[in-house]
Amino acid sequence: MIDYESLLSSAGRQLQQSEIRKMTTLLDQARDVVSFAPGYPDPATFAWSDFQAIAQELLAGQDGTVLQYGPTRGHKPLLEVIAGIVARRGIAASHENLLVTTGSQQGLDLLARVLLDPGDVALVELPSYTGAIAALRNVRADLVGIRQVDGGIDLEHLEHVTARLKREGRRVRLLYVVPNFQNPTGLLLSQTLRPRLLDWAARHDTLVIEDDPYCDLYFEDCTSAADTRPMKSADAEGRVVYLSSFSKTLAPGFRVAWLVAPAPLAARLEIAKQAEDLCTAALDQRFVYETCRRGILERQVPMLRKHYQRKRDVMVAALKASLGDTMAWPDPRGGFFLWAALPPAVNAEAMLARALKHQVIYVAGGAFFVDGTGKNHLRLSFSAPTPERIVEGVNRLAAAVREELAAAPAVRG
Amino acid sequence: MIDYESLLSSAGRQLQQSEIRKMTTLLDQARDVVSFAPGYPDPATFAWSDFQAIAQELLAGQDGTVLQYGPTRGHKPLLEVIAGIVARRGIAASHENLLVTTGSQQGLDLLARVLLDPGDVALVELPSYTGAIAALRNVRADLVGIRQVDGGIDLEHLEHVTARLKREGRRVRLLYVVPNFQNPTGLLLSQTLRPRLLDWAARHDTLVIEDDPYCDLYFEDCTSAADTRPMKSADAEGRVVYLSSFSKTLAPGFRVAWLVAPAPLAARLEIAKQAEDLCTAALDQRFVYETCRRGILERQVPMLRKHYQRKRDVMVAALKASLGDTMAWPDPRGGFFLWAALPPAVNAEAMLARALKHQVIYVAGGAFFVDGTGKNHLRLSFSAPTPERIVEGVNRLAAAVREELAAAPAVRG
Repeated sequence: MIDYESLLSSAGRQLQQSEIRKMTTLLDQARDVVSFAPGYPDPATFAWSDFQAIAQELLAGQDGTVLQYGPTRGHKPLLEVIAGIVARRGIAASHENLLVTTGSQQGLDLLARVLLDPGDVALVELPSYTGAIAALRNVRADLVGIRQVDGGIDLEHLEHVTARLKREGRRVRLLYVVPNFQNPTGLLLSQTLRPRLLDWAARHDTLVIEDDPYCDLYFEDCTSAADTRPMKSADAEGRVVYLSSFSKTLAPGFRVAWLVAPAPLAARLEIAKQAEDLCTAALDQRFVYETCRRGILERQVPMLRKHYQRKRDVMVAALKASLGDTMAWPDPRGGFFLWAALPPAVNAEAMLARALKHQVIYVAGGAFFVDGTGKNHLRLSFSAPTPERIVEGVNRLAAAVREELAAAPAVRG
Repeated sequence: MIDYESLLSSAGRQLQQSEIRKMTTLLDQARDVVSFAPGYPDPATFAWSDFQAIAQELLAGQDGTVLQYGPTRGHKPLLEVIAGIVARRGIAASHENLLVTTGSQQGLDLLARVLLDPGDVALVELPSYTGAIAALRNVRADLVGIRQVDGGIDLEHLEHVTARLKREGRRVRLLYVVPNFQNPTGLLLSQTLRPRLLDWAARHDTLVIEDDPYCDLYFEDCTSAADTRPMKSADAEGRVVYLSSFSKTLAPGFRVAWLVAPAPLAARLEIAKQAEDLCTAALDQRFVYETCRRGILERQVPMLRKHYQRKRDVMVAALKASLGDTMAWPDPRGGFFLWAALPPAVNAEAMLARALKHQVIYVAGGAFFVDGTGKNHLRLSFSAPTPERIVEGVNRLAAAVREELAAAPAVRG
């Protein structure tokens, strides 16, 4: 027998399975489960007939490059469209700042590889997106958590941690944040705090990774586009790398996203991408480009805001009705996620078996915390299920929670 | 001004631009250049109308998962199709051995990350595929070259180098080979040598990465399927990781490839892939699956063999006519590449400027050698240009070579 473990690299040995992806696998095997687990967009919203029409033209065989290898930076007309999209968000970017990525996950992975050596410090929020945590862990960075407050990241704690690390002779290489409708909490980083984060980055000569897949998906009953203005729009000095994606607005199945970075970094990231996958799929880039060029994305986005706002309403109402006295959460102002806290003694991961018995799943909060806390939290994604299934799923969840509390009555206090 | 160089990781600072990708960028900017540079398949051979029909069905909106996130391992029905494809190559693989990758480039990158620590020794042929070299270099492996003979890798040199490294207290972690119609040489590793390579790997407790994108594309006038039988088919012990792809037979624009690995390694590679791009594009995987299910791939492959064989014939004839007395090459028995040697003193990279003036490009050989040799070689890809353009390109190349020799008459001797 070959001992494969002995053949692995240090990074290879330390790889950790994603909790969200584990849920996906579980979901594949189960029937009739209501899934609040992965943050899937609702396929009912996809522009299917437009995609059909686009496919007919793209695949007519007139242009061989549609199915060929393409430039690593991305399909040039798509890069121009992206420059326009970020310009409307207040970000000036030219070709030399842009890179198309195979999902934002690739952007995160490239950044981790290009910026971090083993043992380097990267700061993430408590909680933070598991995909970013995985990418940073895979280069064996040392992840240090920063607490959150209602308005997003806790600036005081950030300053405190940075000062402590400095005293220990360690330099902070980067801070990773999801300012708009954060994954997993749904929190919106207040516009007041954003310039202060930039100021912090400048004082400590560090970079900010601003991951922004949800910015277009604000809920108009409580939030406006102005509230979502990215930090990158005020980044005169070039300290912010901005990531965004077509996965939540067009479809994740294309795996087309992008990043905006200072030109010298974008050039490095491009070279790193060469060795990761040569280029993002040409066909997918064309689909996305054509969807933008024909005004389909522009038409989709206002519809999506209403669509997900309605689902948020349904979930919040259902939770209030059946779990209002045992669970607490901030009402999401956009995005896909509701972040719920159970009584402190409840372990959301342990409760998962019970939830599955009741045919409902979620992501247990612990996965999002790099400091081992957050065990009583759960992330509920309201984006994919229909309103009827959301209600049904919340009822099932309520049954599971009641059982869990009954099984461990001490928890109640 | 921010000093971005100071913000990079060790890996980030050492990234090297791919010579082939550089050519692609160059090509994008130039008009009427005959490109023998990148190994692009011929878009005229793509099954365009079949893809159109498939797109209509896939994008009808009946099945939301077509454009959704999917399992990291790959679309299950596609994995089954792949198991069938490799079975016909003599390889037994079940779900736990397979992983769909975003092009074989991703497979190489994942393997490098999961298997190699900085300074670990990886063996590659002299010359070897630049994409593999880049992936291995990006994890800061120490690449050691093994010479080639007519029948592929030089076993004696391999034993010699392995023994020397052992004496130096260094362990060989893996050997990377492209046994069928190697990129860049077009060489076919003889079936006699293949079991001896497996034996070598067992004796030294090391792994073999068998990269096999071209196996179906043998030229029937001189080669048969039996000649291309992968080493993995005789890998009873589990020392070989096998990579192959749909890029050369269906289209590279889908970025769908796969690997076959011992189950414990496949599991690690899957987790590494989670953090690289979550999953390969769902739509692309469906396209490829449908193409296989409908028998289109099976229909394509015999046609492709003839198509590329004819182009090989055209290139060889044109080269014989105009450069037969100054250049030497082994006639390709399959694949996309012809590997030509100029007189030793000619530097193919320096000659590139002259070639470009004559509107023809190739990849200079040096990029494929990890030991700094091979400067007088060039890789000519005959796969993409039409027969007429191949003839035109060879004539242009001949003019450039004649000028180069005239400019440095000492070279001639």
